[in-house]
Amino acid sequence: QIDSARLWGSIHETAQFGATAKGGVRRLTLSAEDKQVRDWFRKACEDAGLEVHVDALGSMFGLRKGRDMSKPPVGIGSHLDTQPTGGKYDGILGTLGALEVIRTLNDAGIETEAPICVVNWTNEEGSRFVPAMMASAAYVGDFTTDDILSRKDSEGTTVGQALDGIGYRGDKPVGFQKLGCFVELHIEQGPILEAEGKTIGVVDSGQGVLWYDGKITGFESHAGSTPMPLRRDALATLSEIVLAMEATAKKHGPNAVGTVGEAIIANPSRNVIPGEIAFTMDCRSADAAIMDALDRDLRAAIAEIAARRKVEVKIDLVWRKPPTHFDPKLIAAVENAAKTLGYSSRRITSGAGHDACNLNTVIPAAMVFVPCKDGISHNELEDATQPDCAAGTNVLMHTVLAIAGV
Amino acid sequence: QIDSARLWGSIHETAQFGATAKGGVRRLTLSAEDKQVRDWFRKACEDAGLEVHVDALGSMFGLRKGRDMSKPPVGIGSHLDTQPTGGKYDGILGTLGALEVIRTLNDAGIETEAPICVVNWTNEEGSRFVPAMMASAAYVGDFTTDDILSRKDSEGTTVGQALDGIGYRGDKPVGFQKLGCFVELHIEQGPILEAEGKTIGVVDSGQGVLWYDGKITGFESHAGSTPMPLRRDALATLSEIVLAMEATAKKHGPNAVGTVGEAIIANPSRNVIPGEIAFTMDCRSADAAIMDALDRDLRAAIAEIAARRKVEVKIDLVWRKPPTHFDPKLIAAVENAAKTLGYSSRRITSGAGHDACNLNTVIPAAMVFVPCKDGISHNELEDATQPDCAAGTNVLMHTVLAIAGV
Ligand SMILES: NC(=O)NCCC(=O)O
Ligand SMILES: NC(=O)NCCC(=O)O
Repeated sequence: QIDSARLWGSIHETAQFGATAKGGVRRLTLSAEDKQVRDWFRKACEDAGLEVHVDALGSMFGLRKGRDMSKPPVGIGSHLDTQPTGGKYDGILGTLGALEVIRTLNDAGIETEAPICVVNWTNEEGSRFVPAMMASAAYVGDFTTDDILSRKDSEGTTVGQALDGIGYRGDKPVGFQKLGCFVELHIEQGPILEAEGKTIGVVDSGQGVLWYDGKITGFESHAGSTPMPLRRDALATLSEIVLAMEATAKKHGPNAVGTVGEAIIANPSRNVIPGEIAFTMDCRSADAAIMDALDRDLRAAIAEIAARRKVEVKIDLVWRKPPTHFDPKLIAAVENAAKTLGYSSRRITSGAGHDACNLNTVIPAAMVFVPCKDGISHNELEDATQPDCAAGTNVLMHTVLAIAGV
Repeated sequence: QIDSARLWGSIHETAQFGATAKGGVRRLTLSAEDKQVRDWFRKACEDAGLEVHVDALGSMFGLRKGRDMSKPPVGIGSHLDTQPTGGKYDGILGTLGALEVIRTLNDAGIETEAPICVVNWTNEEGSRFVPAMMASAAYVGDFTTDDILSRKDSEGTTVGQALDGIGYRGDKPVGFQKLGCFVELHIEQGPILEAEGKTIGVVDSGQGVLWYDGKITGFESHAGSTPMPLRRDALATLSEIVLAMEATAKKHGPNAVGTVGEAIIANPSRNVIPGEIAFTMDCRSADAAIMDALDRDLRAAIAEIAARRKVEVKIDLVWRKPPTHFDPKLIAAVENAAKTLGYSSRRITSGAGHDACNLNTVIPAAMVFVPCKDGISHNELEDATQPDCAAGTNVLMHTVLAIAGV
């Protein structure tokens, strides 16, 4: 059994790095606050006897030796970055839960056959740099390191500059640390476990993701003197696109979602008809055929809206992550650990993307979910209970012991 | 006849203050660029023999003596501020056209019975500070000087601070310069004169304006893991409001328009459902009953949308300007001047608000319109021809001579 109070203490101690007035955390990847939590995490890992290395994209790897060092380590962990208005658990539970597993094994004097590697992946959230789960995507070879290093945030700062800015451009090449498998603990970020009164979600699959950058070019003109029929209003165009996105996702539901999260009017003024808007779209489904249908329907709807409104709309697909089907053996290991420990559980699909989804494309991976209050995440009010966090960490530990061998 | 080349030269000389790459002007009221054009204008007025005074809100008054100084001056002028992406003519033609009238009278050695006063009104555009036509509204007593001085821009800078910042908080109280009447020359900012091949618009009325500040409070949550039916999406709510505004204006059309010009998502992120949006609305009609109907229908539509989406929408009416009906005698004087000079003309309603609309509530006022290319305004591509600008200025001059007496 892990030390629930110690885990809870770590979560709340690190929540000070980027704490917001509303009780959440604002800790964008590679920001000053991210440096603070990374420094804390490195020291905690070293204090727990781990050998810590940082790769060229800032991902942190803390290795605990196994009896048989010829075996590839069992990877556990998640991320410590947050959304602009994020919570205290998303990613953090999985990273500090992994640390707690190590501390518990140390206290109990338990040696494992295979080594264990605790990981903190850079930029899981994707709000500062595209794509989300950036560093694990490079780890599995979806992108080159150089490509990722050159990606820019909205201020024009590159990943490389941001890494140097906080001193976390590591000296190890991406992929230097081989892993045999990866198990990630996370809050559910959805309402199902709580609604059904289950403690553990055994994640068997994850939604695929489509991310688009969009740009609407209408025509700026006077709000008072331009007759309604002559307008080429970029915001009215966006409005139809937002509602088309909503309708398209609903049409393909329940196994589909679609969101416009960002929209910026160029040079806004209250008496000017908006002429130019940059926006982003996020569509998801756990079914690849539905993802294709979402893409097709959305493009058709946008083309029709643009033509009718005599406005130009450009859509760029900037990221496509196929649906995930986790490793059956690892899924069974998680399920078995939950059962052995006496926790109620159910199989579940992840609505969010996770580093484990990337890793699953090259090594066996799985995930453990615990409930979060009202399914709320990507919100400062995100909440989870201490017993649920401890339960998830126990399941993580027992899964690791089963895989690594005692 | 005014000096067409000199007028054109002044317009293009001052267009350098805030010139944009696309050939427009960005000269927000009380900005550094506004100071540049004000300094230029003050010197030009003084060189033309005018006695220049600045009032407590930065409006500039250049007085040309008349034979009978007991008569109140005939006011002419407009504004030199622009939209964030504005043109070279909106307001500028009327202000520099007024200066050109003085220069022409000087050159011809013409004295008038009543004095003439050239005016540059502060913040006509309303994009930096609310309301538009701010200084003329204070001049006619719609707002107190202290109220206006305390209004803030989006950065929190007050009108008072901005005036001090460029050294244009004048020593004269608002209203110090009595005017007997006011005639404003302006580009039409709409497509009618050009479409009908008319040179002069004799403006007999102006649309009333409703300005609202709006705020939507939905709930931020995860774009991937929040099922469509559970969302309280602030941007989808805004989208319905934008389209309801469009539909409402069309329903009450053709004599009505409605625009959402500004919308800012709080803490936007591509994988977060927008939770909070601030926006503005601008509705207009030349018919007061239609204005009331727009307000009523819009509020009803917004209430329905908010209730259905379980989202809070707050709407504040921050400015209400009733429709304008200009002074019949002055309208006739403008029409007569156009006729005498041999220009084609038609009566027209102004879609935009103008300082003359404010002045008309306390003294007789009228306006002269000239065509602008494709009716485009509040756009960097705003354009007008030299002959049309000269024609309007000639009509302005002959109207002034008729009123002031030679
Ligand atoms: N787990 C999580 O919130 N990941 C962020 C990436 C995404 O799914 O949008
Ligand atoms: N003339 C003009 O563009 N005025 C700005 C105020 C408004 O009508 O919106």
